[in-house]
Amino acid sequence: MSELTRDGLERLAAIGTATLSMQLVKRGIRRHLIAGARPLMPGQRIAGPAFTLRFMPGREDVATPESYTAAGGLPEAVEAVPEGAVVVMESHGVLSSGLLGDILCDRLRIRGARGAVTDGAMRDMPGLRRVGWPVWCGGLTPPPSIGDLYFAGWGMPVGCGGTAVFPGDIVVADEDGAIVVPAGLAAAVLDGAVAQDAFEQWVIAEVAGGRPVTGLYPPTPAAAEEYERHRQKLRG
Amino acid sequence: MSELTRDGLERLAAIGTATLSMQLVKRGIRRHLIAGARPLMPGQRIAGPAFTLRFMPGREDVATPESYTAAGGLPEAVEAVPEGAVVVMESHGVLSSGLLGDILCDRLRIRGARGAVTDGAMRDMPGLRRVGWPVWCGGLTPPPSIGDLYFAGWGMPVGCGGTAVFPGDIVVADEDGAIVVPAGLAAAVLDGAVAQDAFEQWVIAEVAGGRPVTGLYPPTPAAAEEYERHRQKLRG
Amino acid sequence: MSELTRDGLERLAAIGTATLSMQLVKRGIRRHLIAGARPLMPGQRIAGPAFTLRFMPGREDVATPESYTAAGGLPEAVEAVPEGAVVVMESHGVLSSGLLGDILCDRLRIRGARGAVTDGAMRDMPGLRRVGWPVWCGGLTPPPSIGDLYFAGWGMPVGCGGTAVFPGDIVVADEDGAIVVPAGLAAAVLDGAVAQDAFEQWVIAEVAGGRPVTGLYPPTPAAAEEYERHRQKLRG
Amino acid sequence: MSELTRDGLERLAAIGTATLSMQLVKRGIRRHLIAGARPLMPGQRIAGPAFTLRFMPGREDVATPESYTAAGGLPEAVEAVPEGAVVVMESHGVLSSGLLGDILCDRLRIRGARGAVTDGAMRDMPGLRRVGWPVWCGGLTPPPSIGDLYFAGWGMPVGCGGTAVFPGDIVVADEDGAIVVPAGLAAAVLDGAVAQDAFEQWVIAEVAGGRPVTGLYPPTPAAAEEYERHRQKLRG
Amino acid sequence: MSELTRDGLERLAAIGTATLSMQLVKRGIRRHLIAGARPLMPGQRIAGPAFTLRFMPGREDVATPESYTAAGGLPEAVEAVPEGAVVVMESHGVLSSGLLGDILCDRLRIRGARGAVTDGAMRDMPGLRRVGWPVWCGGLTPPPSIGDLYFAGWGMPVGCGGTAVFPGDIVVADEDGAIVVPAGLAAAVLDGAVAQDAFEQWVIAEVAGGRPVTGLYPPTPAAAEEYERHRQKLRG
Amino acid sequence: MSELTRDGLERLAAIGTATLSMQLVKRGIRRHLIAGARPLMPGQRIAGPAFTLRFMPGREDVATPESYTAAGGLPEAVEAVPEGAVVVMESHGVLSSGLLGDILCDRLRIRGARGAVTDGAMRDMPGLRRVGWPVWCGGLTPPPSIGDLYFAGWGMPVGCGGTAVFPGDIVVADEDGAIVVPAGLAAAVLDGAVAQDAFEQWVIAEVAGGRPVTGLYPPTPAAAEEYERHRQKLRG
Repeated sequence: MSELTRDGLERLAAIGTATLSMQLVKRGIRRHLIAGARPLMPGQRIAGPAFTLRFMPGREDVATPESYTAAGGLPEAVEAVPEGAVVVMESHGVLSSGLLGDILCDRLRIRGARGAVTDGAMRDMPGLRRVGWPVWCGGLTPPPSIGDLYFAGWGMPVGCGGTAVFPGDIVVADEDGAIVVPAGLAAAVLDGAVAQDAFEQWVIAEVAGGRPVTGLYPPTPAAAEEYERHRQKLRG
Repeated sequence: MSELTRDGLERLAAIGTATLSMQLVKRGIRRHLIAGARPLMPGQRIAGPAFTLRFMPGREDVATPESYTAAGGLPEAVEAVPEGAVVVMESHGVLSSGLLGDILCDRLRIRGARGAVTDGAMRDMPGLRRVGWPVWCGGLTPPPSIGDLYFAGWGMPVGCGGTAVFPGDIVVADEDGAIVVPAGLAAAVLDGAVAQDAFEQWVIAEVAGGRPVTGLYPPTPAAAEEYERHRQKLRG
Repeated sequence: MSELTRDGLERLAAIGTATLSMQLVKRGIRRHLIAGARPLMPGQRIAGPAFTLRFMPGREDVATPESYTAAGGLPEAVEAVPEGAVVVMESHGVLSSGLLGDILCDRLRIRGARGAVTDGAMRDMPGLRRVGWPVWCGGLTPPPSIGDLYFAGWGMPVGCGGTAVFPGDIVVADEDGAIVVPAGLAAAVLDGAVAQDAFEQWVIAEVAGGRPVTGLYPPTPAAAEEYERHRQKLRG
Repeated sequence: MSELTRDGLERLAAIGTATLSMQLVKRGIRRHLIAGARPLMPGQRIAGPAFTLRFMPGREDVATPESYTAAGGLPEAVEAVPEGAVVVMESHGVLSSGLLGDILCDRLRIRGARGAVTDGAMRDMPGLRRVGWPVWCGGLTPPPSIGDLYFAGWGMPVGCGGTAVFPGDIVVADEDGAIVVPAGLAAAVLDGAVAQDAFEQWVIAEVAGGRPVTGLYPPTPAAAEEYERHRQKLRG
Repeated sequence: MSELTRDGLERLAAIGTATLSMQLVKRGIRRHLIAGARPLMPGQRIAGPAFTLRFMPGREDVATPESYTAAGGLPEAVEAVPEGAVVVMESHGVLSSGLLGDILCDRLRIRGARGAVTDGAMRDMPGLRRVGWPVWCGGLTPPPSIGDLYFAGWGMPVGCGGTAVFPGDIVVADEDGAIVVPAGLAAAVLDGAVAQDAFEQWVIAEVAGGRPVTGLYPPTPAAAEEYERHRQKLRG
Repeated sequence: MSELTRDGLERLAAIGTATLSMQLVKRGIRRHLIAGARPLMPGQRIAGPAFTLRFMPGREDVATPESYTAAGGLPEAVEAVPEGAVVVMESHGVLSSGLLGDILCDRLRIRGARGAVTDGAMRDMPGLRRVGWPVWCGGLTPPPSIGDLYFAGWGMPVGCGGTAVFPGDIVVADEDGAIVVPAGLAAAVLDGAVAQDAFEQWVIAEVAGGRPVTGLYPPTPAAAEEYERHRQKLRG
C-alpha cells in the first residue's frame, strides 16, 4: 500500500486538496473527488490511509435496533479501526440517516483514528462538537443509521462521493472537500504538489505586485523558466 | 391530540431530535424526518404543536401581488397562528421563492409562535437575523412566495420534507434538523427518550474512560444490566 | 445598456435582492434568480454590470492542463474584465470542478472587478479568504476547472442558475442570493425598490408596535393611503 | 369556470397541447406544463375540467390499510368524480407508490371521467391496459398509495408537475404531455389555437414544397400577409 | 433461506408485483421496491432467488480494460450464477455505464438464470433483444461498465433501487417493476397474495357490473363478509 | 476535422455506439456519452459531423415570440445546417420546453441533415412521427423553446449530456444512446471497432455453443491467440 511516512501525510494535509487534485488530474486520475463530503467543523485538515465501512439501503426486517449488537455490527467495526486511519463510509447518498453520532466518534478519537469522511450524514451535532473529532460529511440528520440504512461490514473497497476508495488509499480532506489519492501514486503526488505549491507562492507574490496572469498562471514556458531562475537564486 | 405540558415540550426540545428519532424508530415510525429543514440561526431548539400552512406551485394568473391581500391570504394565516405553535409550511420542495420574510416573522414572534419549520426557503436574512425568531428551512432566496408558489390555505395536514405533519403533531427542531412526533405518541416518546438519554450519559463517561463500544453501545443484555446496577446505585 | 451611475449601483446593493426581486416580479420578470449562488464570505453585497465567462462540460482531449495557456484561455479572459464588473460564470451546474481559485480572484480584485457570481464551484478556500474578494457560488471543491469542465470563452450571453444573463445586465448579490436585473429595467427597478423599502420601514415599525399584518402588509388601499399620509407628514 | 362546450373540449384535444401551449405563452402563462405526466397508452388525447385529488407524503401511523376505508378515503373521492372530468392528482413527485390501480380506474371509466393526469405513479399495468382508460402519469410502480403516500382529500387546488391546477381548469393531454388551461382563458386559447393551427398547415405544405423557414416560420409580417392572402383565396 | 418450490415461484410471478407489494406493506415491509428497474422487453415476468453482483463508482487506475480478466472479475461472477437465480446488481444509481451486454446475458441465459434486475443501465440493446433474456434496468447506455464503474464482487448483500437485497431473497419483476420479498416471508406473502388476488377478481366483476367502490374496495367488514359468502358458494 | 468518408460514417453507425464506446475508453476518452439522448423512433441509427445549436435558460424579456424572427434566430440557424450534419443542441438539461417541432425538423430533413441529438426535449410528436427524421432527445413536452429557454446561436462548442461537442466532431446514435467521437480520433476508433466487432461475432458463436465466458470475454492472451488462429483460418 502507501509508503508515506507520518511526516509525508502531514505534508499532504498541509499542502491541501486543491493542489493535490491538480497533480492527480495531471496523472490521469480525474475521478478522485469524494463529492458531497463537507467539513463539519472549521479549520481542520487531515490525511491518512482509508479504513472503509459500508452502509447500504436498509429494510425494516434487517435494519433493526437489534442489528447494532449482532456479530459484525457497527461497534465491532469501530473497534477494528487502526490508529492513524481515516474512516471512509459508503452511504449510497442517503442523507436521511446519520452514520455515526458522538459516542462512536469519541471512541474512534480515543483509538487514534484521524477522522471520518463520507457523502452520507452524521447525527448529534452538539455531541460531535464536544468531541471535536474531524468529520467531513454530507449533512446532519436526527435519525440513526438503521432508519434508512443497513450496516454491511468493513474493510472492502467502497464507493464514496462518486469515486472508488480502497483500504489503504490516502484520503485527504480540508476546507475545499475530500479527495482520494490512490496508494501507489501518493509519493509521486506529494512530490509534484510540493513543487507546484512553491511555484504558486511565487505567482501569488507576483500577482500581488500587479502582474497580469496571462502567460504567468498557468505558466507559459517563458514564465516557467523565469520561475526556475527565481528558484535557483533563492537557493543560491 | 397531544397532552404534553409546556414543561414536557421543553424537555423534548432539550433532549434533542437524535434521541427522539431513535425512540420513534423503535415504535415503528421511521418516516418522521422533515428532510431539508436546517436551522437558520445557531444554537436554537424548539418543540411545539404544529400549525400548518400550505404553499403549492404557482401560476402567473393566480400567484399575483394582489393574491396577498385577498381573503384567505397569507396575512390572515399569520393572524390565525396560536401562541406556542410551530408553523410548519408545505413548499413542494420549491427553493426559488421565499415563504416568509422578516415582517411576517416578527409578527409571528410577537403572537407567541415558537418558530417555523419548512423544507422551502425564506427571504431577507438581514431582517430575519434582526428579528431572531427561530426558523428551520431549506435555504434563502430573494424572490417572494408569489414568484414560483401559490398560498393555498392553513390548518390542513401537510407534506413537509417527505413526511406527513398534522395540525397538533409535535414538531421538534434543533441543530441536527427537524422531526415530527405524532401527537398520540408524544408522551411515550418523551418517557423513552429520558431513559435513553440517561443511559447515554453513562456510556459517554465509560467511553471517555477508555472502554470499547462493543457490547456497550448499543448495549448487550449484560451491559444493560450493568447500567441498571449503576442507576440503582446512583439512586440508592 | 444600463445607465445606472456608481451611486445607483451602490443603492441597489444596499436595498438588497429581496426588495429588488419583488419589483422584478411586479414588472413581469419572474425568472431573475441566479439559483444556487450562495455567498462565500459573510456580510458582503455587490451590484454591477455583468461580464460573462462560459464554462461547459469538458472532455479528456480538450480539457487539458495545456488548454489554460492556449489563446482564448481563462487567463486572457481574466485580463479582459473591466473595472466595476461582476464576473458571471456559466457552469452547467457542475459542482465537482472549481472555476476559479485564489490567484485568479486576486488578479480580478486588483483589476477592480466587484466580485464573481456563479452556480458552479470555487476552489482553495483558505486562499480565497485571504484575498477577501466577494464571491457567490454553488460550493467548494478541490479539482481545477479542467477536471470536469472546458472554458469556452467570454462576453456572450450565459445561462446561470436557471436564468439568462447578458453582458451589461446588472447583477446584485447579498446574503439572500444573487439576481439579475435586465439592463433596460435597472433604473425603474431602483425607483420602485426605493419606494418599497421606505414603505417597509414604516410597516416594520407598525408591526413592532403590535399591529396585526392583515390589511397592512401587503397593504390594502386603506393601508396604502395611511402610509401616504404618514409619508406626507414626515416630509412635512 | 370554463364555458367550453363538449365540442370545444374535443377541439382542444384535437388541436393538441403543443399549439395550445404557444397560445398560453403568448398570453403570459408560461407555467402551464404538468411536467412528468406521460401517456400510459398510445394514441390517446383528452380535454376536460379538472377534478382534483391530493396525495401527500405518508407516515406509518396514518398511511395504513385501514385508511382506505375511513370516511373521506380514496373510494369516496372516486365516487365524487363527475362525468366528463379529468382527475388531476397531486403526488409531491413520489414515484415509489401507485396512486390508482385497475379497479378504481375502471370505476372512474364507468362513471364517465375522461382520464387521469398526475406526475405521480400508477400500478397494475396489465389491469390498466385491460381497462383502457386514458392515464398520463410519471411511471409505474408495484406499491400501493399507502406505501409512501397519504390521501388527503379532493376538490381543492393542487400542485401537479410544477404548476397550479384549480378545480374546473381545463386539462388537455396528448402524446407530448399534459397542460392546464386556466378556466377563464380556455375560450380565447381555443380561438387562438384554431387560427395558429390553420396557419401551420399552410406552413407545413410550403416547407414540404422546399421553401426555407427563414421569414416563414414563425412568420415575418410579410409572410403573415402572404398567408392572409392565401387564406382569403381559400375562402374566396 | 426461501423454501418456495419452483411452482411457488411461478405463482409469485403470475400474481404480480402489485398484489405482492400490498402483502409486504401489510407485514410491515414498506421498503421492498427496487426503484428504477424497468422491463427492457414487453410481457416478461420472473420470480427467483437473488444472486448478487456489486458494482461501485470506478476510478481510472482500477476500472481498466484489464480489470475484466483479473481474478474475481465479472466473467467469473457470471460463471458462478446458479440455475434459477435472478441476478441483482448494485449500481449506485450510475446510468452512464452499462453493467452487462448481450454476450454475458446470453451466457447467463444458457446457465439457466431467470433474468437480471438492477437500477443501473445495460448496453447493446439490439444484441439483448436477440438474446431475449429477461432484464429489468434503469436504462440503456453505450459505455461499458468500466466507463464509470468498478466491479467489486458477488454474493454479498447489495443495495439496489433503495432497498436491501440479500442473496436468497426472492425477487419478483413484471411490467410494474421489481420488488424483493425477504426469504423468510416469501411463503406467507404468497398465501396472502393468492387470497387477495381471488378477492380482487370478484371485485373486478362487481365493478364491471356497475357497483360503486365505496365500502367494496378496499372492503368494509360487510363487503368482506359478502365476498366470503360468494367464495363459499363457489366452492360449495 | 474528421476525414471520414460517407462510407466510414455508415460503418460507424452500423457497428453501433456500444462498440465505439469501448474503443474510446481504451483511448482515454471516458467522457463521450451524450447522456439523456434517447431515440424518439425505433430502429434508427446515424453518424455524422456535428453542427451545433446553443439554447440556454431564458427570461421573460428576451425569450419572446418575437425573438424567433429576430436576426440570428432559430430559423436562420436551421438554414445554416449543411447536408450530412447531425444537429447537436445544448439545452442545459431543460426538459420543460421543446427545442424543435415538426416544421423545423422537416426543413432539416429536406436540407439533408442526418438527424438531431440533444439532452433537451422536442415537441409535437404526431408531427415528428409524420416527418420521420431521426431524433435523439431527453423527452417530449408541449411548450415551445421560448417557454423556458433562449436560443443563443450556432456553430460554437456546446455541452450536451455532460460532454463537450465541437463542430465537426462525429456524433453517432442508435438504440443504446448517443456518443461523440472527437474528430481527430474517428479514423482510429473506426479501425479498432471493426476489429472488436469481428472478435465479438466469434465470441457470440462460441458462447451460443455453450462455452463459458471466463478467459474468453474479454479475452485472456490465450483466447486472443485462439481467435487469431480462427481469423487466419477464415482468411486462409
